[in-house]
Amino acid sequence: MSDLSCDGFLNGRLRVAQPRRGFRSGADAVMLAAACPTVAGQAVLELGCGAGVASLCLGWRVPGLRLAGLEWQADYADLARRNAAANGIAMEVLTGDVARPPAELRAQVFDHVIANPPYFLGGTAAPDGGRAMARREDTPLAAWIDAGLRRLRPGGVVTLIQRADRLDVILAALGARAGSVAILPVAGRAGRDAGRVIVQATKGARGPLRLLATFVMHREPAHAGDREDLTEAAAAVLRNGSPLVPLFAKVS
Amino acid sequence: MSDLSCDGFLNGRLRVAQPRRGFRSGADAVMLAAACPTVAGQAVLELGCGAGVASLCLGWRVPGLRLAGLEWQADYADLARRNAAANGIAMEVLTGDVARPPAELRAQVFDHVIANPPYFLGGTAAPDGGRAMARREDTPLAAWIDAGLRRLRPGGVVTLIQRADRLDVILAALGARAGSVAILPVAGRAGRDAGRVIVQATKGARGPLRLLATFVMHREPAHAGDREDLTEAAAAVLRNGSPLVPLFAKVS
Repeated sequence: MSDLSCDGFLNGRLRVAQPRRGFRSGADAVMLAAACPTVAGQAVLELGCGAGVASLCLGWRVPGLRLAGLEWQADYADLARRNAAANGIAMEVLTGDVARPPAELRAQVFDHVIANPPYFLGGTAAPDGGRAMARREDTPLAAWIDAGLRRLRPGGVVTLIQRADRLDVILAALGARAGSVAILPVAGRAGRDAGRVIVQATKGARGPLRLLATFVMHREPAHAGDREDLTEAAAAVLRNGSPLVPLFAKVS
Repeated sequence: MSDLSCDGFLNGRLRVAQPRRGFRSGADAVMLAAACPTVAGQAVLELGCGAGVASLCLGWRVPGLRLAGLEWQADYADLARRNAAANGIAMEVLTGDVARPPAELRAQVFDHVIANPPYFLGGTAAPDGGRAMARREDTPLAAWIDAGLRRLRPGGVVTLIQRADRLDVILAALGARAGSVAILPVAGRAGRDAGRVIVQATKGARGPLRLLATFVMHREPAHAGDREDLTEAAAAVLRNGSPLVPLFAKVS
């Protein structure tokens, strides 16, 4: 994989090499990491880790994790290994298919699974093979959730970020196998539809579903050109690595 | 049914007799009516119409509808008929079970179905038989949605208000039979979890699911005693009968 850029995340606290063309991680990966309520000593698996951005954000925020990533594309898996090493964060990256994980992974259980599954259905034309593979849904979203639930211990937590319009598919795939579902709608601007949802669920739990207050990314009511207009809350997550975890904590 | 109160809705524009004890309609019924995008000349069915508040709010806002209600409890059905007559709004109220609607209803199709299905699971103790029946889910939520979809014409719209934690059940019941689903989260106060969702879907449609911006009922961050503290938007709906319909209209 050539023609890489080195991008700063968390205000430059992480430096991550990514292909200039093809799938590139951004705010969604950082938001995903921010939502995962893990603590030191736990094991976290990222399905489809790409160049490793979400896992590395998590490793930066919570030292002492056992981080593992599964990535189908060998060149992205290589990048993730190099990015982990370059940032001094321990992360085991396995190459393999989410729908048929390698035996080495199937032998493990995790406290947390995180994933940012592809946003587009298979068949979408894309000029670059890597981008096409990473963004297309060759593996159905339900299979990602199934794979995640299988790798969780009972009481373990799966956290996903996905297009908001896939909420029905996500809830159906969680089904009766995970409960205490919490949905964080993420909207670009106040008053707009949510573009993303972060969905969190606990394996084997029976608590009620919760629909949390919408998280808003930008302050201005419309696109403000190149001017930075993140809300205070979004800037805290994207620039400073603040967790979204408190939003998911149950308050009566 | 004795011991009735006469309650004003829409700032007194409607006067509705309801039992003092037992199930009493309130803001949810008014919100439900406000969300239904019907126009003059259409046919609207309310499943579980109780004393008729939602249908009568709709009939007040949109003259020239053919309104029908189905209500299991004969005394509530009687009340609904009397309330419709007292407010000068034409409404046919049938007595019968949502899960096994009378043949007279099964022979009809509607442009819209609205429903505020019971919020509590069967078995919850309640001191009053009427309240218990109306609030308990003796008919599963999925059966309400199934009954509603059966009575809709293709392209007809079902609009439900329900506890937010039942969102998974609602989406599963809509399944592939209705699409272009729009979910309006309704929260008591800004920053709180949604307590209710208004879910709207079109029979046979295939459009993407939308998660709309949360509708907030109260201005104060905590309960403000007896002081009225509705948000401007909530007051417009509850006091003036303003529609919520524009929130559901697709904007790109």
